[in-house]
This record gives sequence, structure tokens and C-alpha cells, in this order.
Amino acid sequence: MDHAIVAEKTEQACAILDEVDLDCWLTFCRESDAIGEPSLPFVLGYDVVWPAAVILTAQGDAIAIVGENDAAPARELGVHDVYAYRESLESMLQDTLSAIDPDEIAINYAEDFRTADGLTHGMYRRLLGHLDGTPYADRLVSASDVIRRVRGRKSATERERIYRAADTTEELFSEFAEAWTPDWTEAAIAEWFHERLTEQDLDPAWSPDYCPAVDAGGSATAGHTMPGDRTLPPGEVLHFDFGVRYKGYTADLQRCYYRPSDDASEPPDELQAVFADVRAAIDAGIEAVEPGRQGQAVDAAARETLTDRGWPEPNHGIGHEVGREAHDGGTLFGPPWEPYGASVEATVHVGGIYAVELGVDTDYGYIGLEDMIEVTDSGIEYVVEPQRSLRHLSG
Amino acid sequence: MDHAIVAEKTEQACAILDEVDLDCWLTFCRESDAIGEPSLPFVLGYDVVWPAAVILTAQGDAIAIVGENDAAPARELGVHDVYAYRESLESMLQDTLSAIDPDEIAINYAEDFRTADGLTHGMYRRLLGHLDGTPYADRLVSASDVIRRVRGRKSATERERIYRAADTTEELFSEFAEAWTPDWTEAAIAEWFHERLTEQDLDPAWSPDYCPAVDAGGSATAGHTMPGDRTLPPGEVLHFDFGVRYKGYTADLQRCYYRPSDDASEPPDELQAVFADVRAAIDAGIEAVEPGRQGQAVDAAARETLTDRGWPEPNHGIGHEVGREAHDGGTLFGPPWEPYGASVEATVHVGGIYAVELGVDTDYGYIGLEDMIEVTDSGIEYVVEPQRSLRHLSG
Repeated sequence: MDHAIVAEKTEQACAILDEVDLDCWLTFCRESDAIGEPSLPFVLGYDVVWPAAVILTAQGDAIAIVGENDAAPARELGVHDVYAYRESLESMLQDTLSAIDPDEIAINYAEDFRTADGLTHGMYRRLLGHLDGTPYADRLVSASDVIRRVRGRKSATERERIYRAADTTEELFSEFAEAWTPDWTEAAIAEWFHERLTEQDLDPAWSPDYCPAVDAGGSATAGHTMPGDRTLPPGEVLHFDFGVRYKGYTADLQRCYYRPSDDASEPPDELQAVFADVRAAIDAGIEAVEPGRQGQAVDAAARETLTDRGWPEPNHGIGHEVGREAHDGGTLFGPPWEPYGASVEATVHVGGIYAVELGVDTDYGYIGLEDMIEVTDSGIEYVVEPQRSLRHLSG
Repeated sequence: MDHAIVAEKTEQACAILDEVDLDCWLTFCRESDAIGEPSLPFVLGYDVVWPAAVILTAQGDAIAIVGENDAAPARELGVHDVYAYRESLESMLQDTLSAIDPDEIAINYAEDFRTADGLTHGMYRRLLGHLDGTPYADRLVSASDVIRRVRGRKSATERERIYRAADTTEELFSEFAEAWTPDWTEAAIAEWFHERLTEQDLDPAWSPDYCPAVDAGGSATAGHTMPGDRTLPPGEVLHFDFGVRYKGYTADLQRCYYRPSDDASEPPDELQAVFADVRAAIDAGIEAVEPGRQGQAVDAAARETLTDRGWPEPNHGIGHEVGREAHDGGTLFGPPWEPYGASVEATVHVGGIYAVELGVDTDYGYIGLEDMIEVTDSGIEYVVEPQRSLRHLSG
């Protein structure tokens, strides 16, 4: 249970319903620890076993219809009117909807926004069955627009947690640079981070298999590969993609470390130039971040800066929202490729926190950076200071 | 990646398609670490970011169509023909289906079986879009029957891991009983278990908030409540619901411990009688487990034994399959209540591993037991020895 989040986000969601002129939003799910319903942490804050319906309205009502074994946490939370059922939620659901009598009921499906797509097809069919014979079966619409606003506009508590996750991520990088010795393999480095997380009772921001991702030198392949038995050769670069999860909220940062060699205590000019190109491309992306601008325009600004400098274009979008998930859905800074769908046409919004990331493969290793920014009423703020030059390792 | 599981389950799934006379089974998902697709660990074995289609056929073909950034693990696995796409999987998907030309394509939705219901409604709509203009959009059927068989019939590796998870769970109970002292609160007890799991690099079988569930004495409320600040009074009973997860596979056991008092070093007769009633009801359920018998018949046998002895009937089903999830879906030993749907009409099958569980509230505490059994060709086997009398705590 997470009272602060559920209280803040429920109030915010009801206001958003009013703003987008929708009567109500229905989250319908079951056994939510097995098949996650990405909206449930906002509207209920704990996992249910039996089918559950959480209904928020533009008038500010919050109603939870849950199995009787799932009801205690909702009652303790005190945010909802709680109705507990023993055998079937159908009549309670029908009665609740009749009382609201909505013109449209927003439900959680979205072809192009996965965090707004938590309703399974079987549960959709089950919902149709519950509404059979009522006028409401024909009033179901996608909650995509509501959910993107709810997830995207960070509340005070969410914002605090993300900043704390990012600060902690940078603290662990600093601690790592002190502790590292040249015999550490990628796998040993990843294990070192996992041990520090365990000590602080924190989780990685995504699957521990790839968090941190660790790429040691020019023979490593950046991307979704697990840390292996490579060590970092002198004169090459160690690349990280890593983030801490703090109380359910994530950070997502990429950082690069140069290991001095006997010949070159400082990175060679050629390598410094690569770093400058990557930095410039990310900076161009960040400069393009403006409320109302489409995600694909931000992507294009960074992508063109990189290719203008002679590098191949990234084979992925160059930025994304950060929240409960490191890739939190909503607006994507990506090219207009089919897998991204409408997410690259969605726009930058105030209250959003984004990561901007890209890199290039070199003989020294993968030179990749990722920074986190917040879009505020008064402009862009860095969540943590960007990396502006290659960091050095010595050990 | 988990080569043993993907290889064994893919081969088994193709044979099951042949057995149920279905041409092919399509698993379609994206960003699978955010919204889990419960079938993906069997048919691919790792999480994907971009939309992915895994197609198995009755002829024994295994085809994975994945984004190019998701392709490396599938290639390394060597189980599938791997097709990697850059911008869209649509043409590869259409070409693959044209080559198979299936009469029916089983996809992952099921109103009553949540582990067979991994396809979101948005992804279902997206799939219809990809198949638009082909004959295949009209040939989609539920894969429920296939998935229930695939999940339910344990392969050799799955069976080994579940037995190991259950053995480890019992080992931790034994170690706990040695370590316990009367000043331990429920929360301290739960933390002790979590520390032992971390030491062995194991996870709890379900959410750590409730795994173990710990109920100390008559003032505790069993069910989905988090361990609190209660200690166990003398002469009362400590109840656990706990399981270890070993390499992705779970155990699920309930055990009860009596704390002797100055007046009663042995449990009073009244308490022993309650324990005997719970034991008898579970034994009646286990005796009713026979291949081909419906889940609701198993439930009824246990439920009636308990109510015949004067206890209120449990407000939940009394048993379930155990696998990657502690509540693994498939056949449920439950009453014919609406939330359970058709799962209680599904039948016991050879190769299945089940938990049988129930209990009653008393002034001494919750007396609940849960045992795990395997259904083999030659009869029922206990995964670990059942608890046949109250265990004693002394500390």
C-alpha cells in the first residue's frame, strides 16, 4: 500500500477526467501480480487476487469493487468507497455504473501505448459479459489519453522519488569508481551494484539481468546482452546503462568511464571527439524538448546532429518518459517507425520527466550517454547533472 | 534465458498442438517485463521490448519474429527460426502465416484462465490490424486449452525445480524453528526469512509483502495482511503461508507451530482436535484428486469434510496448480462461484503439481495447512511430507 501515491494520483485522475470531458474511468483486472495492470498502482495501490473494478469519475468519486479477501487494504487506505463481493461483482458493477450513468466509460486498452494497455483480451470479453443487457457495453472507449496524462504528470511524491532514485544512481556510480580494480569482469561489476542495492534495500529499475548493463571495451556489444567475463582493457571505455528503483519509481542513466593506459593517461583526441559528438546530439535533443512538441521532432533533432557528424543513426528512439517504469510509455522521442505507432506523435508536457539517450560503437567501446530532464512551467531542469566529459577509472 | 525450459516446453507444446488438432499457436506481446505475458517464459524464455510474435506449429516448427534489438538471445538459444525486423513485423508475420496456412490460429486470451490470458486488448487490436486483408484475421481462436496443457504438464526440469523449491521451503521452516525466540514479531519473522532467501540468492514465491504470511496467535487475522508487530503468546499458534521460488518455479506450503505455555507444554486436546479436523479435510481433498475429475469435485470433498465437522466453509477454493506462479492457473479446486468461472470445471491431469489448502480460525490462532502433491501415472505423490501434527516452538 502506498497511501501518498494513491491519494495524489486519484485526485489528479478525477481532475483529468473533467479536463478531457470523460465521465468515468474503469480499471478492471484480476491476479494483478501475475499479469501486471500498469494503472493499478495509481488507482488502488496493491495487488488483487479476484476480479476487481476501480472506478473514478469526473465528479471526484473513487469506487473500488473487490473480492472480500482483497478488501482489507482498500478499507485501510481510505481513498475509495469500498464494495466487497463474495461470489460475483456483476451486480455491484452494474449498480455503480447505473448510478453514474456515464456517456462513455474509459477502459485500459491502447494499441500504441503499452502502459495504457493493461486490460487483457479475456478480461475485456468478461467485462462485456458483465455489461450484457445494459446500455454500457456500447459505451466503452480507450482510456489511453487519460492514462498518459495521469502517468505523465508527476505528483509531488512521484517527483521526489524519481529525483532520489537518480541521485542514488549517481552516488553508486561514484562509489563504484572508487572501488573498481582492473580484474573486475562485467559480471563482477554488475554483482557489485546488486550488492550495494541489497544493502540499501533498493531494487534495480529494470530486470537485474540487464541492470546495470555493463559493456567493457571495444570487444563488447552494447544492447540487451548480459554482463559477461570481459575485463576492461587499458585505453578503452566502460559503458553503463543503469538506474535505481526507489519506492516504486525509477532512474535511467548511461555513463562512460575511460581506463588510462601507460601510453595515454588522458583519452586520445579521437575518443574525446566521439564523446563530444554524442554529447552534442543529446544536447540537441534536450534543446528540442518543449511543451507541445511531438516526440518525433525531439528524436529528429538529436538523430540529425549525430548523423551530420558522420555517425550511423541509432536503431532505437532517443528518449522516453521515466516513472514507475524506466521506459514509462506515453510520449516517445522516436522516429516514425511502425513499432512505435502513435507514441512518437504524442507531445512533450509540463510535469513530465524524460530520459534522452544515444551512443555510438567505437574501437574503444560503446560511447553512450543518457540524461534525465524534467519539464517545468519555467523550462527544462536536469534531474541530475549530465556527464560532460569522460570519467576516469584508476585502480 | 533458460534453454532447458524453452527447449522442453517448445517441443511439448508442438506435440500438444498436434494432440488437440490445432495448426499453430501465436504468442504476440511487447515490453514483456512491464505487462507480463505468462506464456513467454515457455515459448521464448526472455523479455522483449518491441512487439514480438512466437509461432509454434503442430509440425514442430518454432518461429520467433522479434525486433532486431531483441534478437540476440533468441539466436543464442537456438530453439527457433529467428527473424529480426527493423521497422515492422507485419510482412514477416503475414509471410510466416501464409507458409503455414493454418485453419485456426490459437492466441493468448481466456476469460476464465488468467495464465492463458496474456494478450492485451490493445495488442489484440494491433494483431487484427496486421492481419487485415489476409484470411487469418477470421481464424483466431483462444489458446486456452493449449496453454493449460503446456503449463500443467510439468517437464523433467520443471518438476525438479518445484521439488527443490519445496524442499528448500521446508529446510527454511526447520531452520526457523531452531532460531526463533519469543520476542520475534511477525515482521521480524518475515525479515528473517527474507534474509535467508537473500543469502541463498533465492526469491519468495510471491510478493515479499505476503511471503511469508505470518499470523501470530488468536489476535491475528489470516489472509492478505502484512506481518505486523504481534509476538506469539504462550499457548497459541504461529501460522505460515510461504514458498521459495527456485529458478523461476515455486513452492506453496502452510505450516503451524504451537508455542508451549507453563500450563500446557503440549497443545490442549481441543486444539489437537481442530488440527485433526483440518488435516482430515485436506486428506479428503487429496484422496479425491484423480485424473479426469473436475476441480470442483476435489473442492467439495474437502469442503464437506470440514463443514461436517462443524466448521465454517472456506471463503476460497481449496487447491490450485503450482508452477511458475504459486497460483498457476489451469485447474482450480474451487466451488462453482462466478469469479472462478470454468477453472473449477477443468480436470485433474497426469503430470500436474497441485497445492491443497484450507484452515479455520480459532482462539489459539489460524490453524491452516497446505500440502503439495504430484499426479503421476501410478498415483499421487507428496512433493514434501505433509504436516501431520502441530510442530512445537521453544526459544
